Amino acid sequence: MTSPGRYTDTGVFVCFEGGEGSGKSTQSRLLSDALTADGYGVRLTFEPGDTVVGQEMRRIVLSPETGELDDRTEALLYAADKAEHVATVVLPALERGEVVITDRYVDSTLAYQGAGRALDPAELESVARWATGDLRPHLTVVLDLEPEAGLGRFDERDRIEGESLEFHQRVRAAFLDLAAANPDHYVVLDARGTVDDIAAAIRERLAPLLAQAVREPS
Amino acid sequence: MTSPGRYTDTGVFVCFEGGEGSGKSTQSRLLSDALTADGYGVRLTFEPGDTVVGQEMRRIVLSPETGELDDRTEALLYAADKAEHVATVVLPALERGEVVITDRYVDSTLAYQGAGRALDPAELESVARWATGDLRPHLTVVLDLEPEAGLGRFDERDRIEGESLEFHQRVRAAFLDLAAANPDHYVVLDARGTVDDIAAAIRERLAPLLAQAVREPS
Repeated sequence: MTSPGRYTDTGVFVCFEGGEGSGKSTQSRLLSDALTADGYGVRLTFEPGDTVVGQEMRRIVLSPETGELDDRTEALLYAADKAEHVATVVLPALERGEVVITDRYVDSTLAYQGAGRALDPAELESVARWATGDLRPHLTVVLDLEPEAGLGRFDERDRIEGESLEFHQRVRAAFLDLAAANPDHYVVLDARGTVDDIAAAIRERLAPLLAQAVREPS
Repeated sequence: MTSPGRYTDTGVFVCFEGGEGSGKSTQSRLLSDALTADGYGVRLTFEPGDTVVGQEMRRIVLSPETGELDDRTEALLYAADKAEHVATVVLPALERGEVVITDRYVDSTLAYQGAGRALDPAELESVARWATGDLRPHLTVVLDLEPEAGLGRFDERDRIEGESLEFHQRVRAAFLDLAAANPDHYVVLDARGTVDDIAAAIRERLAPLLAQAVREPS
């Protein structure tokens, strides 16, 4: 639980975290485009669901037809998705020296399930860490936003987004706590900034880490 | 890991374990029929897959189309199935005072995945115990059989049954070790006996435990 985690020494693992509507998808795509233009090998990915098995699990967890899943069932399905994602997508790309950019990772599990459900956070973390072999992002970008602002951007809400405002406030606090506990591997950015300003801040913070990434000669 | 486990004080939880072809399904059905005839409330169930979510997971894990799943993914899917099974089927029936008879439970995970795969057995056990809230059967019946004898009964083999003979020998040894470590809650029976003799031995061993079960007045 207090393990320092495992960081690969090839490739660069970048994670975007934050609440709904904080701009994670936009910023992860912009970063991917910029690094690709600079000649880096880039793998843009997401959790949950960016594997064949993961899509099945995401369908089970998010479908309104599933009804109320037991909390442990849900946590274990998300953990299975992570295990498959790390083993078949993230680690192979890092081993090739690529920049892996993921929209959500373990912190989302800790924030959403730990903040919202009746599960013991330490046990939940230990399952998620086991699933991922304790692989950590070299840099996690937290796009911080008041829940009121982020949720207002959506008309339709799925099962997770339909939770209470207080739930989303606990999620936000969880992301900020995780970042504060490990500043070497986190950057928190105010999601209300302009898209360009946020993108520039991410590039600046990431620059020194790119030495581990493979760049094609142009 | 060395936790004594949790045993309900209402209902009776009976589990059948053993290799392929050892007669678990036959004996669990016979026991269910006999107890039902005696007026007990009985819930006959199985793992993996005796919930809606479990069927989906079983389909993912066992389908030849899935290909090679990462070991942790597979372990976590089985654990999710267990969590859902315990929360929605096993515990509610025990709380009603029923006899719950399950064809396979945690020991199958420990035996099949622990004996056959590259995962740390202690970590695997801790995930499975977490999934089930460490709920243990009052009695586990191990139907013991040489793998050569059991596997010979099948013409078609699914992904699990297609493993090597040595794998199934490790599985058998794992069941026997689990039984030896906790004789108060296990009985090992030679699966080569007649169906009637084995059924009678199970009834005899179970009899003193039935005080916890609710019996309808006849």
